[in-house]
Amino acid sequence: MSTKNIILFALLLFIPISVAAHFLEWGELIVFITAGLAILPLAAWMGTATEEIAVVVGPSLGGLLNATFGNATELIIALVALNAGLIDVVKASITGSIISNLLLVMGFSMLLGGLRYKEQTFQPIVARVNADSMNLAVIAMLMPTAMNYTSQGINEQTLQNFSIAVAVVLILVYALTLLFSMKTHSYLYDVGVAETEEEEIPHAKPNMMLWIGVLLVCTLLVAFESEMLVDSLEVATSQLGLTALFTGVILVPIVGNAAEHATAVTVAMKNKMDLSLSVAVGSSMQIALFVAPVLVIAGRIMGKPMDLDFQPFELVAVVASVLIANSISSDGKSNWLEGTLLLATYTVLGFAFYFHPVIEGIG
Amino acid sequence: MSTKNIILFALLLFIPISVAAHFLEWGELIVFITAGLAILPLAAWMGTATEEIAVVVGPSLGGLLNATFGNATELIIALVALNAGLIDVVKASITGSIISNLLLVMGFSMLLGGLRYKEQTFQPIVARVNADSMNLAVIAMLMPTAMNYTSQGINEQTLQNFSIAVAVVLILVYALTLLFSMKTHSYLYDVGVAETEEEEIPHAKPNMMLWIGVLLVCTLLVAFESEMLVDSLEVATSQLGLTALFTGVILVPIVGNAAEHATAVTVAMKNKMDLSLSVAVGSSMQIALFVAPVLVIAGRIMGKPMDLDFQPFELVAVVASVLIANSISSDGKSNWLEGTLLLATYTVLGFAFYFHPVIEGIG
Amino acid sequence: MSTKNIILFALLLFIPISVAAHFLEWGELIVFITAGLAILPLAAWMGTATEEIAVVVGPSLGGLLNATFGNATELIIALVALNAGLIDVVKASITGSIISNLLLVMGFSMLLGGLRYKEQTFQPIVARVNADSMNLAVIAMLMPTAMNYTSQGINEQTLQNFSIAVAVVLILVYALTLLFSMKTHSYLYDVGVAETEEEEIPHAKPNMMLWIGVLLVCTLLVAFESEMLVDSLEVATSQLGLTALFTGVILVPIVGNAAEHATAVTVAMKNKMDLSLSVAVGSSMQIALFVAPVLVIAGRIMGKPMDLDFQPFELVAVVASVLIANSISSDGKSNWLEGTLLLATYTVLGFAFYFHPVIEGIG
Repeated sequence: MSTKNIILFALLLFIPISVAAHFLEWGELIVFITAGLAILPLAAWMGTATEEIAVVVGPSLGGLLNATFGNATELIIALVALNAGLIDVVKASITGSIISNLLLVMGFSMLLGGLRYKEQTFQPIVARVNADSMNLAVIAMLMPTAMNYTSQGINEQTLQNFSIAVAVVLILVYALTLLFSMKTHSYLYDVGVAETEEEEIPHAKPNMMLWIGVLLVCTLLVAFESEMLVDSLEVATSQLGLTALFTGVILVPIVGNAAEHATAVTVAMKNKMDLSLSVAVGSSMQIALFVAPVLVIAGRIMGKPMDLDFQPFELVAVVASVLIANSISSDGKSNWLEGTLLLATYTVLGFAFYFHPVIEGIG
Repeated sequence: MSTKNIILFALLLFIPISVAAHFLEWGELIVFITAGLAILPLAAWMGTATEEIAVVVGPSLGGLLNATFGNATELIIALVALNAGLIDVVKASITGSIISNLLLVMGFSMLLGGLRYKEQTFQPIVARVNADSMNLAVIAMLMPTAMNYTSQGINEQTLQNFSIAVAVVLILVYALTLLFSMKTHSYLYDVGVAETEEEEIPHAKPNMMLWIGVLLVCTLLVAFESEMLVDSLEVATSQLGLTALFTGVILVPIVGNAAEHATAVTVAMKNKMDLSLSVAVGSSMQIALFVAPVLVIAGRIMGKPMDLDFQPFELVAVVASVLIANSISSDGKSNWLEGTLLLATYTVLGFAFYFHPVIEGIG
Repeated sequence: MSTKNIILFALLLFIPISVAAHFLEWGELIVFITAGLAILPLAAWMGTATEEIAVVVGPSLGGLLNATFGNATELIIALVALNAGLIDVVKASITGSIISNLLLVMGFSMLLGGLRYKEQTFQPIVARVNADSMNLAVIAMLMPTAMNYTSQGINEQTLQNFSIAVAVVLILVYALTLLFSMKTHSYLYDVGVAETEEEEIPHAKPNMMLWIGVLLVCTLLVAFESEMLVDSLEVATSQLGLTALFTGVILVPIVGNAAEHATAVTVAMKNKMDLSLSVAVGSSMQIALFVAPVLVIAGRIMGKPMDLDFQPFELVAVVASVLIANSISSDGKSNWLEGTLLLATYTVLGFAFYFHPVIEGIG
């Protein structure tokens, strides 16, 4: 824990560095990298602050807080990019977050957990409900492209209306999954959570005011750094010889999900697979059922219309990720080879995005 | 039961009304709606008559009767539409029946059953066999489109021959699933059925002649009403501002499957999920493995060639429905959230069909 | 056993016959058929020789030998075809091997085993790990086509580089699945293997030198016959009125997999489903994770560049096969209807390949 904190504090240095890089015009690439590094500790503390506040306000409201602020970093980056009109970057970061949570985070958790324990188990019903929520989200994401390919084309206004209608359905379903996991079937989810709280939070009642302050300051700083990250993204990636598609789908989500990554792997190595999976898959679900629909609605309000019409290759990657992740997780058991298969799938997709020819409008 | 019968008798009034509407030319829209309402009680009585006759002739032959006449309404409507040359309407009603049985009927059953019982269970092996039969049917339905897209195009005669060959395979498989469920592995299916017969048919031996008469009269009347329904369909739907695709896939199947719908939900609320699922999934299987192939062969005989080349967007919807329904049902357990996810999928698909741009040849 | 050996010895006669047919120019069709028949006994003895040597060198190295030489026949045929520049035939035989192992071999095993035993069981974890390895392979195979369709096209050099990168990942994964099944989780696989060795190899220590000799001679003869098979393939199939696609995907794999077929069905009828499935699915896995990537790399070395860009319709067939085979096997239980469903899927795909219009470049 201590080592982790030292690293996090050290990374804070990148806040002033990124600001200097921006105003002293050290080059877009340096701004991009330093802003990305500066977001890492901020995201981690936002997570900690949310958890601390959750303890005080009680399990129900706390769970809701956790669920809502869990992907705050991704949401902020996406809102900033949306406001800058970089719709393709927003969409790429949505699909990238889903892919990296399901394959990279879950893969490392199962692999590293599986190297210690021959076979790890978790609630199969929870895995199944999560899997089917992801299936629903994938079906919703596929519709616009499917409608487009199977007709003489679909106009932007229809697409917008359809996207808003679907966004409302998805947010509703997200609310119902929270009701399911926190109220009507909370006993299924208690296993992992109970074990953790007991072990990881042995301290006195947290200082509510302090943590609300931390949350606010971190949120503002993340928004600020995201602004620089997004501004420098296009130039920086072309300097790196990468396409915007690769950056959006592979690089940005690694920054945005670093905190979840660390948590999921740590608890997997303590044989708490229920918690590890709820972080990895839960995070994907939040992105698909909450963040993406919220962005669609926010885009409408901000006058930067965003629809659910994703780049077809991103859809292929999401469908593939959801299928293999669901197939691996649905029996409630895992081992190191299953983790390896997820990581291999991520590697293959990574190569595919790397070699994917640049397409107009997204790079 | 009594309330249900009163409603059914009241709905009979729509038979003379629809006839009047047709001959007095009250407008196609009124003919369409009244003919649709008139079919509801007739379909219900056809179901009752089949069940009563099945009791007399014994379980084996009775099961076969049930299985064959179970979707008689859909089959009659489809044959009438086929005879009128409305091939696209026939195909739309096939895909629509599959989708609405798997998502709407199964979804409401799991949701309403799940509101009463925390977790409901059913034979996972039966769910799996059904799921894989649906997988086979979906693969067969996908082939013509896949062959078309991956070649320089496929001529109509080849498509016809292929469709006939596949239809024979599917009908054979359907016969074998009956053999499986009624003979070699009937013990897997006994649970639900035994419970129902015992409870719902406590009366004396039914009057065979009476019920054969009811079956004949209802069949004739359904055919007659279907004729009016199909004739008025195109004009009526355009008056409603709907596409023929939406009407065929979403509206018509609700009329055709109302009886199954009522049965499946009722028994689900009595915690008889085995029976509820066998009605919902069984009905989809009948449509895919029996009704659709029979229509292909009937089309050939009637000189109205029908193939298995479905509209690609319908295929997307069927694939999505089968995938999520299989995923949800294959573990032999259900809860209210799983029902909700099925209904949400249906809603998303409904929106997609509603917003889908009109395509030449089908609207 | 005895009958089997008599048939195998009789089939050896086709070696001189095929040579005569080739040099005396009896026609390409006769060369094709006799060379195909001559390969059958050679493939069977290669299998036996590998197993005998495996017994001597011990389980670890022996397992590796078995795994590597298990698909030697397919590999040799494919290398010969690759060297002749018949890239499309190579690809067709890869997809055909996967399809026929998963549907035909597994289907007959489950059907014939299921006719004797009401329900057969096998290790669900093994089935799942195999299923997910196949999922990974399918995702890898889909990528080039998906990249092509979702961009302005992808150039051959990029495709080559991508294919090599993916091939390395797949071979690595294959090595790890061997590590899993032979070292870290070998207890999961012991059941079936233990039973067989005990029963089928009751004899004394095998003569190592003899079997190495048999292996070498058979390998050379297979290579020699493959040369004639491949040379005569194009003319022969057009004389039969078949497309090269149908021959490559349906006919050639039946020759190449005859030995696996016989073994898998025989042990299934002895209720050893673990072993039966490990032969059927294991063979598919070897093709997808080892043979195909080796061919990509070999092609590069031989200066006959082969990529992983399969004909789209072959991909559709592979995806369909993997989905239904995974769905049927993942619960660790089987019955005759499940076998029938696999065979019906194979029949439908067979019809589809038969009716698929000829495409330039592959026929």
